[in-house]
Amino acid sequence: MRVGTARLEGRTAAVAVDGDRAIELGTSDVGEWLRAGRPGPTVGAAEHHAAALEFAPLIRRPGKVVCVGHNYLSHMREVGVEPPLVPTLFAKFSETLIGATDPIVYPLESVKVDWEAELAIVVGRRLRRADRADAATAIAGFTVSNDISARDFQRRTGQWLAGKVFDRSTPLGPVMVTADDVGVTPDLAVTCHVDGVEKQSGRTSDMHFSAPEILAYISQLVTLAPGDVVLTGTPGGIGDTRQPAEYLRPGSVVTTSIEHIGQLRNVVVAAEQLDNHPEDEDA
Amino acid sequence: MRVGTARLEGRTAAVAVDGDRAIELGTSDVGEWLRAGRPGPTVGAAEHHAAALEFAPLIRRPGKVVCVGHNYLSHMREVGVEPPLVPTLFAKFSETLIGATDPIVYPLESVKVDWEAELAIVVGRRLRRADRADAATAIAGFTVSNDISARDFQRRTGQWLAGKVFDRSTPLGPVMVTADDVGVTPDLAVTCHVDGVEKQSGRTSDMHFSAPEILAYISQLVTLAPGDVVLTGTPGGIGDTRQPAEYLRPGSVVTTSIEHIGQLRNVVVAAEQLDNHPEDEDA
Repeated sequence: MRVGTARLEGRTAAVAVDGDRAIELGTSDVGEWLRAGRPGPTVGAAEHHAAALEFAPLIRRPGKVVCVGHNYLSHMREVGVEPPLVPTLFAKFSETLIGATDPIVYPLESVKVDWEAELAIVVGRRLRRADRADAATAIAGFTVSNDISARDFQRRTGQWLAGKVFDRSTPLGPVMVTADDVGVTPDLAVTCHVDGVEKQSGRTSDMHFSAPEILAYISQLVTLAPGDVVLTGTPGGIGDTRQPAEYLRPGSVVTTSIEHIGQLRNVVVAAEQLDNHPEDEDA
Repeated sequence: MRVGTARLEGRTAAVAVDGDRAIELGTSDVGEWLRAGRPGPTVGAAEHHAAALEFAPLIRRPGKVVCVGHNYLSHMREVGVEPPLVPTLFAKFSETLIGATDPIVYPLESVKVDWEAELAIVVGRRLRRADRADAATAIAGFTVSNDISARDFQRRTGQWLAGKVFDRSTPLGPVMVTADDVGVTPDLAVTCHVDGVEKQSGRTSDMHFSAPEILAYISQLVTLAPGDVVLTGTPGGIGDTRQPAEYLRPGSVVTTSIEHIGQLRNVVVAAEQLDNHPEDEDA
């Protein structure tokens, strides 16, 4: 099953996407749909042409967004770190998330804005101090993200947060494919193109920590809840470690794809160029 | 003005505390009260004896909890770092927060649980890309926190998050004193006692970055919203750098006080000893 959060006139709605049909599910986003127990569409539910829809961030206000730093060997090699014993964790905020085709907004103060194509886990139920098998059953599904990172801000101190949380910088969507469809340790191609040129190409089976292992580890620390989002790290090919280094600029087009799930296409704009967010009014 | 979030039978309520009187303010916590525009009590609002109240986390579900790492010279000295050019930032989660007299819960896997008495800022309005003067006007008030930290988990990777976010580990409260009462750069004594012995004693005037400077910096990255909470760093005297090092154990009593605001008193318990949280049902 594929579900997304569509932007409709003056509102958003969770929709089930089936081919070219998108049927409303009665909640305002996929997060609320998960917390409501994943209701099916009611009789006479509004239907839309999927191809015509604009998608909001899959989860509009996750309780938590947790990210894993070093998780693909190809990426650990390029940044020069050894495989860690436990996942390296940091956070993002709701304000950081954007929809599948929204602009990636960056302040001109950062001149090292980089890409990180990532598989994202969506948590389906409460999970506390779980083992790997239990954690596997808490995975609602997977979606696509790009952990856009301002390397200059990221390295101002030892803690990465400042380079990872810029308003409206991290696309999440367009849809979630449920775990009963792809399994809990899917082997899917992950790619990132910038202005049509392939920069990253990996497979999720190369992850050092699998999705169930990551959720089990986080749940040892803090209780996971329905609608929480976990980014699982990026394969090799980031811009910062290229010779010479490459970064995004206003006008750059970032295309992030994960096989069987979908594609994000986001244009970078300067924070100074833009007005408010579609979701600002009720933020 | 002093406001808190009281735990009443089967619910919580924002209350204005005036001497021994606590008057309900019509919202379920101080976060909702701020988002509702800080309404005064209605005629006939329920009143309680303040001394008899149990306080929930001041903000039950902040949109963001942002923490500053190195901010007092006395603490930078003991951990051996130079004053940074910008605040060192990391995050906590809603699940991490507890009330003023709740147990501090820690899993027995951590044997290096430490204290960090901190002044916490409560954000009163939306703030984006603000300067220091504008940020000052966004401070709703201040409360008391203790950034309880599992040093072993904190140092497993370069990112501190894993040692900072344990469920039910960070007290926040008991009340917020509004900025019109104490100003936006208050000079207040901050102390932490463990089992009655003073471990930390500093003054908030020793902060390297002031409260308005911290909010202005964060707002360059991500939009701050009413009810967001920002912990401002701890003075010297943590357990980890003592000779020999000292840590909390099940049964330790941690008392955290900030002059003119109030006191937290929390007993450390092992995660394995406890059932669910009072707020778990609707979490």
